[in-house]
Amino acid sequence: MTTNKMRVGLVGSGYMGKAHAIAYRNAMAAFAISQEQLQCEMLADATPELAEIKAQELGFNRSTGDWKQLVSDPHIDVVDICAPNFLHKEIALAAIAAGKHVYSEKPLALNADDAKEMTEAAESAGVKTLVGFNYIKNPTVQFAKQLIERGDIGDVVHFRGVFNEDYLADANLPFSWRLQKQFAGTGALNDLASHLVQLATHLVAPICSLCADLKVVHKQRPCAQAEDGVGEVENDDQAHMMVRFTNGAQGTLEASRIAWGRKNGLSFEITGTKGSLVFDQETLSELALYINEGNPQTQGFKRILVGPEHPDYRAFCVSAGHGLGFNDMKAVEIRDLFQGIVNNTPLWPDFRAATQVNIILDHVVESVDKRAWVEVEQYDGERK
Amino acid sequence: MTTNKMRVGLVGSGYMGKAHAIAYRNAMAAFAISQEQLQCEMLADATPELAEIKAQELGFNRSTGDWKQLVSDPHIDVVDICAPNFLHKEIALAAIAAGKHVYSEKPLALNADDAKEMTEAAESAGVKTLVGFNYIKNPTVQFAKQLIERGDIGDVVHFRGVFNEDYLADANLPFSWRLQKQFAGTGALNDLASHLVQLATHLVAPICSLCADLKVVHKQRPCAQAEDGVGEVENDDQAHMMVRFTNGAQGTLEASRIAWGRKNGLSFEITGTKGSLVFDQETLSELALYINEGNPQTQGFKRILVGPEHPDYRAFCVSAGHGLGFNDMKAVEIRDLFQGIVNNTPLWPDFRAATQVNIILDHVVESVDKRAWVEVEQYDGERK
Amino acid sequence: MTTNKMRVGLVGSGYMGKAHAIAYRNAMAAFAISQEQLQCEMLADATPELAEIKAQELGFNRSTGDWKQLVSDPHIDVVDICAPNFLHKEIALAAIAAGKHVYSEKPLALNADDAKEMTEAAESAGVKTLVGFNYIKNPTVQFAKQLIERGDIGDVVHFRGVFNEDYLADANLPFSWRLQKQFAGTGALNDLASHLVQLATHLVAPICSLCADLKVVHKQRPCAQAEDGVGEVENDDQAHMMVRFTNGAQGTLEASRIAWGRKNGLSFEITGTKGSLVFDQETLSELALYINEGNPQTQGFKRILVGPEHPDYRAFCVSAGHGLGFNDMKAVEIRDLFQGIVNNTPLWPDFRAATQVNIILDHVVESVDKRAWVEVEQYDGERK
Amino acid sequence: MTTNKMRVGLVGSGYMGKAHAIAYRNAMAAFAISQEQLQCEMLADATPELAEIKAQELGFNRSTGDWKQLVSDPHIDVVDICAPNFLHKEIALAAIAAGKHVYSEKPLALNADDAKEMTEAAESAGVKTLVGFNYIKNPTVQFAKQLIERGDIGDVVHFRGVFNEDYLADANLPFSWRLQKQFAGTGALNDLASHLVQLATHLVAPICSLCADLKVVHKQRPCAQAEDGVGEVENDDQAHMMVRFTNGAQGTLEASRIAWGRKNGLSFEITGTKGSLVFDQETLSELALYINEGNPQTQGFKRILVGPEHPDYRAFCVSAGHGLGFNDMKAVEIRDLFQGIVNNTPLWPDFRAATQVNIILDHVVESVDKRAWVEVEQYDGERK
Repeated sequence: MTTNKMRVGLVGSGYMGKAHAIAYRNAMAAFAISQEQLQCEMLADATPELAEIKAQELGFNRSTGDWKQLVSDPHIDVVDICAPNFLHKEIALAAIAAGKHVYSEKPLALNADDAKEMTEAAESAGVKTLVGFNYIKNPTVQFAKQLIERGDIGDVVHFRGVFNEDYLADANLPFSWRLQKQFAGTGALNDLASHLVQLATHLVAPICSLCADLKVVHKQRPCAQAEDGVGEVENDDQAHMMVRFTNGAQGTLEASRIAWGRKNGLSFEITGTKGSLVFDQETLSELALYINEGNPQTQGFKRILVGPEHPDYRAFCVSAGHGLGFNDMKAVEIRDLFQGIVNNTPLWPDFRAATQVNIILDHVVESVDKRAWVEVEQYDGERK
Repeated sequence: MTTNKMRVGLVGSGYMGKAHAIAYRNAMAAFAISQEQLQCEMLADATPELAEIKAQELGFNRSTGDWKQLVSDPHIDVVDICAPNFLHKEIALAAIAAGKHVYSEKPLALNADDAKEMTEAAESAGVKTLVGFNYIKNPTVQFAKQLIERGDIGDVVHFRGVFNEDYLADANLPFSWRLQKQFAGTGALNDLASHLVQLATHLVAPICSLCADLKVVHKQRPCAQAEDGVGEVENDDQAHMMVRFTNGAQGTLEASRIAWGRKNGLSFEITGTKGSLVFDQETLSELALYINEGNPQTQGFKRILVGPEHPDYRAFCVSAGHGLGFNDMKAVEIRDLFQGIVNNTPLWPDFRAATQVNIILDHVVESVDKRAWVEVEQYDGERK
Repeated sequence: MTTNKMRVGLVGSGYMGKAHAIAYRNAMAAFAISQEQLQCEMLADATPELAEIKAQELGFNRSTGDWKQLVSDPHIDVVDICAPNFLHKEIALAAIAAGKHVYSEKPLALNADDAKEMTEAAESAGVKTLVGFNYIKNPTVQFAKQLIERGDIGDVVHFRGVFNEDYLADANLPFSWRLQKQFAGTGALNDLASHLVQLATHLVAPICSLCADLKVVHKQRPCAQAEDGVGEVENDDQAHMMVRFTNGAQGTLEASRIAWGRKNGLSFEITGTKGSLVFDQETLSELALYINEGNPQTQGFKRILVGPEHPDYRAFCVSAGHGLGFNDMKAVEIRDLFQGIVNNTPLWPDFRAATQVNIILDHVVESVDKRAWVEVEQYDGERK
Repeated sequence: MTTNKMRVGLVGSGYMGKAHAIAYRNAMAAFAISQEQLQCEMLADATPELAEIKAQELGFNRSTGDWKQLVSDPHIDVVDICAPNFLHKEIALAAIAAGKHVYSEKPLALNADDAKEMTEAAESAGVKTLVGFNYIKNPTVQFAKQLIERGDIGDVVHFRGVFNEDYLADANLPFSWRLQKQFAGTGALNDLASHLVQLATHLVAPICSLCADLKVVHKQRPCAQAEDGVGEVENDDQAHMMVRFTNGAQGTLEASRIAWGRKNGLSFEITGTKGSLVFDQETLSELALYINEGNPQTQGFKRILVGPEHPDYRAFCVSAGHGLGFNDMKAVEIRDLFQGIVNNTPLWPDFRAATQVNIILDHVVESVDKRAWVEVEQYDGERK
């Protein structure tokens, strides 16, 4: 069943909540979606007061201090979950139970079992789901996928992905919920490597086996209140994986949250039998492409600036090389969400695909425990 | 007199018109401006039908096929001119006569005399004006200005600016109004070098003398209709200037619209007595900075990724290095426009400042005719 | 016992042999070593005729078609082995037996057992040894080591090294000895990853455990003579390692000989508790350095161009940023060799250090067989 | 008349003298020139003692404290002038009078009149001449020339060259002969822009008219001996030129010796009707090339790493991307010198070509005086 509009309820207005709010506006103007068709209907936050202020600032019609009220509101079509990770499951299950479509930030859940429960609930209820692995929405990355799919670089034989940031590089940054397993799950693995896993799967093939290494480098951090002493850091600062894909390709994936100097340091290099491509999110509007053809004297990596010849760029600008930003990727994601819902077409990556990411993250922990390679369960491969 | 809202009438919904439309939405979400405070009220385009479609797509409440109707509408506070250059003057004068504030795309006019007439009309009427020299609104460029103003690179002794694109590099692209003096004025000079002149003035000091060179490289182009033969190109493909600034610094500015491979190739390097900075719009979210201090062994250009420590970035993202896009600069410009109007504070660059750019462009033509250096009239310096 | 001169006998005048010949000349002029002190005395190659031609071309006094004659010549102080890998052992053992110092290209041997035998022979005979892991001789890399040792980036917590080239990326390149275990040992692992292992050990700490993955991607290649059909490739095109260092740091090392577009793609990024540094051999005269200090607003990776403030650069040029080349690194290696021999001081990396590399490469194969982590024998740690 | 050997007498063993000494050795090994064929015969320096030490260090057979003795020595075929600029003329004329070939560092002379006198003396005497504009010997730049000549980028329509260094950026560096007209001639113009003029001429076409700007930024500098007070700087810190070439192309050339952060900052961008190329000496082994062909979606600047497919690289290394250094360019220059002399073939750039550079530098001063464009004398065009 198709509809002609999408009314959004946003849960959480922090970092990603604001990015979503910007993206709704941006998507409407860029993709010619009217305010009638896409309505920012309600915003939930921790208290009614905060929610009201934020709704005003971010352009939502109504607000509430209780996300349960939002989830059950009859004028909401999609629940957009930007709450902390450990709340994703409860909110999503409630939204599904209320028959709402769900758009959740990543990682979908703290572990694969929770993610499966969420996936099965959504599939049973027949609601649509989308998880915010936004990096694949970047026109540059869409173009990379296009190049791979049409065979420009031949058969993919290697993927190397790195996602390094330095948001916890300072050992004196205070202890917080992010460093505790019960609230955050794993560390750099969950926050950063999850994107790499999803990108690798999206661009190359399913991952079928892996071997991993995790390390907590800064084992204690001072509590925010000096009198509380120090907190014991429970999750990884650095995460490594060697992987094999179902198509036979090899890969290496690594992430760090303590890599000084890297701010949004997601990069990948994909090697095929005919060429290679290289991407770095810190220069998100360009792709380096090497193709083995023509005069060897003039072979080299081409620096391609994304432009109107590439997917979805033209909606933002008709001139090449003018540069898109981080928030523009989210606008593409919103456009996907909108089209999927109003046209009743599939969304990607949905809960099942995101569950596959959670499964792989769980296998990482298993591999670390065993100090050996492990085989990967193919949950997304069982998609009906 | 302050007000609490800004109602916008947009004239023209092509390239820049759409960029403005995106920017209004983007600015509202990023800078917490409510829909009550900033209203996209009316859109004018060539025909009522087109205007209606575009108003729908871009989120404007009403539409009209006659910009004169928009200009005189009582529910419009600001007229936003995204019409072709040769119409700027007529629309702006009409808007000013109707007591509207005016926000115009650059270049302000086809020549300095027209620009002066517009400036004087606006100043007499007491309306506010803003001209869309958007590159100075980029947080990275704002940061460059901050570095210069607080003396981090010492006294500026040199500015080199290049603005190269390749939108007319193909000699077989058809003849058009852009290539005729009566509609477009000069060529690369007007389109591209105007930005460099404004940037140089903004970042260094007023330009007091110059010597220039202009060249039409592709002298004829085929008409769009083959039976019309060829058109004679009347304006420059390449433009060069050597300049001197009032503070004694030297500069070189050059622009080309036929520079293969450059898409938004606006770059500058500013040298001071203590250091240097380098910017390239094709990587708009980074600045290279060299400071002569500390151990010579570890001196080098620093690649600084723009982040929340820098002006206006935090409104878009709380994490450094996540990258802003071209449209985000326009959102900052809209925020400036909004604040200037609701708080009744000065806007920059206004018509007078933009007229100074037009004056310099006219001196370029004069210098080319004389094959010699010329002194520059200081119109903006007479600001009251 | 010190001496005042070094007379060289070079075995092999192919790729690396010529590089050595250039380096002897280069080192003499750059480091003020006279022709009296450093004599290119004899060159051995496959036939007397070839040897004579090459000696003439490369500036050696005498020549021979029999390396055994060279090894036993009384006017030779150092035997320089640039013969194919599988001959290293026999030549080195003969040279040692004749009381000569030995300077060998890497990898030292095809496996750890051979390398140990060579090491023990040399140590018993009291001759000096040096192995051509030239990348650590680069002034830029020497500077990186200096930065690490003096604590500029704090304690090292991570090393990532990649060494990718594309010399076998074309699947139609003919079958050769390089692809057979008995002649070449492993593939990309031996050729390329061996450098990473040595660099990581040199810059960070000994490697104490590892887990690895190897893959032959192009399993068959056409024989050079079409009638011979295809050859079965026996060694790895791609090699991965996750490692742990004795200081607790983590690392990832990977190499490929089929990575389209990479020509001398040796790069590393080293993260410490206070900063990071990044090097790429394709731009061998620059180092990127990030230090967490000062105003966060002006933090960024510094691009440092190597110059006379850095180790050994001044011998080549007194101006910074003028760029050294690949052959200049070899000249530094020759200078080290000369000084070690005439002053009777230690050489680095010697056979024992190089044997540690061979041991690690053998552990890689062991890990692949076990599909698990393995502990690394510390042979170099037993150095007396 | 051909000969079979070249015996060199080097005058001056400072910065460039040592670079030449390294280059003689390097050229012999790289290009298979024997010690019999190329003899480093005599070195002259300021005193006999210094000359003897330097001859020993740099590998010259004999030495002298009097360059006149070297110039008249019967066992010298080529006089290599690495003495300060103001001595070039006297030494060259004496060498020519003695029937020697002359290889001089650039700039050839302090002014065009001197250069013409030197050229005419050499041409009358029938000796060969070569001037050390080494940047055109770089395999990367040779490749650029090849691309232009075979039409890969179409007709050249624009050249932009910048040569910035920071060797005098510190205003407290002491006063010296370099800052006085009688010893150094002009400043950044002579030292740096002379290379740009030669490169532009070499790569594009003769320069037929120009307009220039020169500025002394730091007008006084402290004398080395504090009691001597300050010295008045007489020559330019920054130099600008706009030029027109005989083929109709436009160009801009600029140089600075006070540009913080630039160490060997010679870069150029050449635009043609079909493509563009970009070079930066600080990464001297790569060229960026953009060609307008094929799918617009995959157009971009290619980063080409110089390798054995390109001119003269293979002599140094058989693998691509291994990087040449500054000194390697000089080795190519020496190879040219050697071949020209032993084969009696033309050398490039000779005194006449270098005189054309001096003529242009003189026109720069004329243009600055006139504050206008000037026509350029075509001296090299009168070559017989």
